[in-house]
Amino acid sequence: MSGFEFESLEKTLENHIPEDELTQVKRILFGNSTKKLELPACAVSAASERDFELQGHMFQCASEQLRPPRRIRVGLIQNRIVLPTDAPILDQISAIQSRIAEIVEVAAMCDVNIVCFQETWTMPFAFCTREKELWSEFAESAEEGNTTRFCQELAKKYNMVLVSPILERDGLYSTLWNTAVVISNSGKVLGKTRKNHIPRVGDFNESTYYMEGNTGHKVFQTQFGKISVNICFGRHHPLNWFMYSMNGAEIIFNPSATVGELSEPMWSIEARNAAIANHCYTCAINRVGTEHFKNEFTSGDGKKAHHDLGYFYGSSYVAAPDGSRSPGLSRTRDGLLVVELDLNLNRQISDKWSFKMTGRYAEYAEELAKAVREDFKPNIAKE
Amino acid sequence: MSGFEFESLEKTLENHIPEDELTQVKRILFGNSTKKLELPACAVSAASERDFELQGHMFQCASEQLRPPRRIRVGLIQNRIVLPTDAPILDQISAIQSRIAEIVEVAAMCDVNIVCFQETWTMPFAFCTREKELWSEFAESAEEGNTTRFCQELAKKYNMVLVSPILERDGLYSTLWNTAVVISNSGKVLGKTRKNHIPRVGDFNESTYYMEGNTGHKVFQTQFGKISVNICFGRHHPLNWFMYSMNGAEIIFNPSATVGELSEPMWSIEARNAAIANHCYTCAINRVGTEHFKNEFTSGDGKKAHHDLGYFYGSSYVAAPDGSRSPGLSRTRDGLLVVELDLNLNRQISDKWSFKMTGRYAEYAEELAKAVREDFKPNIAKE
Repeated sequence: MSGFEFESLEKTLENHIPEDELTQVKRILFGNSTKKLELPACAVSAASERDFELQGHMFQCASEQLRPPRRIRVGLIQNRIVLPTDAPILDQISAIQSRIAEIVEVAAMCDVNIVCFQETWTMPFAFCTREKELWSEFAESAEEGNTTRFCQELAKKYNMVLVSPILERDGLYSTLWNTAVVISNSGKVLGKTRKNHIPRVGDFNESTYYMEGNTGHKVFQTQFGKISVNICFGRHHPLNWFMYSMNGAEIIFNPSATVGELSEPMWSIEARNAAIANHCYTCAINRVGTEHFKNEFTSGDGKKAHHDLGYFYGSSYVAAPDGSRSPGLSRTRDGLLVVELDLNLNRQISDKWSFKMTGRYAEYAEELAKAVREDFKPNIAKE
Repeated sequence: MSGFEFESLEKTLENHIPEDELTQVKRILFGNSTKKLELPACAVSAASERDFELQGHMFQCASEQLRPPRRIRVGLIQNRIVLPTDAPILDQISAIQSRIAEIVEVAAMCDVNIVCFQETWTMPFAFCTREKELWSEFAESAEEGNTTRFCQELAKKYNMVLVSPILERDGLYSTLWNTAVVISNSGKVLGKTRKNHIPRVGDFNESTYYMEGNTGHKVFQTQFGKISVNICFGRHHPLNWFMYSMNGAEIIFNPSATVGELSEPMWSIEARNAAIANHCYTCAINRVGTEHFKNEFTSGDGKKAHHDLGYFYGSSYVAAPDGSRSPGLSRTRDGLLVVELDLNLNRQISDKWSFKMTGRYAEYAEELAKAVREDFKPNIAKE
């Protein structure tokens, strides 16, 4: 069985491991068990007709005396591109928009409050090609582009916050950026936030197209909680997650595009570690499938020129601050993951574990300030 | 099956999952496969006679043209206490020393270069009791204590670096600390490093006994590589791992004492995330078994007074910078985990993934300096 065909870790465990041992395996691998979230029949049948996976889960959280629960529902969408990468650009964008619209409609049936799409969701992840002209045409204004208008309509229609990661063309200097636009449930653009860390690894030639973001670690106050967006490669940088959390993020979305050969064993580790370390929820989203490009390209690995970046393995999931995580979507299908969570859990876990209280951040600020100086002398004891 | 009896995740997966799917499960859960390390027959039979588990694994690493391999072997030791916790103190210490001596002898047969014991290895993890008098007597001088002399003998005898985490009594003010002493293979004390983050969670009443360490993020230059020691609770703090790495650590040991109910789902996440994010090896070590105390104590959870802290679940493992990890020792038995690793992998992975190069540390130093000020205004966008 190749990695390509393997549907999901969770399915394999459930298919083969006897019940009593499975309980221990799941406890160790996934933490406090999530409950199945009952979703409306109309949503289940719509997902089936539209050929995408629909899963619903709910994290556990204790009730408090002084605060009412702050239960909300997030929706994570993973999908393939719809048309071939050499179809006319507007056709490609329209086809993906239609696909997303039919999934978002189901999210609305499931009472999702905040939905997040995958990284640069309107286009193939074409940066492996290093071709500029064609792919740069997919870039749009974050504030006034066609895609943002499309999202504003959905947001208003469904009273839903939308996180829309796009390739941005910034007006003033016509610069490209990898950007997430956050649309309020009122339909207004709440703001945008840019990818802080840009990969130079394998075929991820993104630094050819755009630079490190200049929007810092912004948090968006929505009606359903304070959210941030750590785009893709930023999930490998613990300081990035940390600084969103220091600015008050209660949920950090991680829209991504990453392939099996490169990163799959890290996928279940990094967003989850961030949820634990920062007393918040994290949502990791990856696209699905293999995208073929007309012109061949090489990968700097001595191998022959080829036409694809590899297999995007989906597996989108949500991690909670108590160390637990939801089951993941499959590695193979378009999907919508609906997760109900109580934001009160963040403070409960902070009160229990106190990683922020015991964090000694003032001392780290001093140490880090020294460590980045050119004359930094590492603290090394020798015999 | 209770958590207490469950032997190990790895065993259960291997017992039940068919070969073709198991390959995918292991790839996703554990990354690049480790190879079995052939250990000498005398070591295998000694471990069997002495009733402890012995495992040997080897991480993969490419060869380079300009640098010879830097292959070394680390040994991780997990164990139960030997005598009841109300036996005379010196008897308890001697019994544990004898047990450790017979395990270290096997480590020497396996050509281990650096061995690390579990947190406060000479004593029960008695801080749950909040009793001061008895347990404070286990504290010793880091430089001149009986335990350090014992380790110096072993280090010289076997030409081995020893990491010896103890309860330290510091001479000048007779203060207690949670400290790791690093002994060079020459037998000299290379130095000591103290636990930077002290838990206030569950029965881990350690802040009753000792304060946050004042030794910073020291790195020890040994003949077998540059090592650091991140003691127990510090594994929940990504900045702690990070700062050891910024000072040049190639291997970071994490001697711990932690129980199933509290932390087990986090155990496989945190040290591994640190290895990935910091381009280094990490070694997570936990003690085994349940320790009973004569006097009952309560846990601040509304439950009845009781006599133990819970079940220490072992599961010690080594994580590599490429996202892979070794199989863990069992949850139930004393054990020695021997892992051969090539320190060259750290730079190879740094050259491939470039998390340090793309880390933007100067900007984080500035942001963190602002975030710790009393007048810090979080960056929050509102409608």
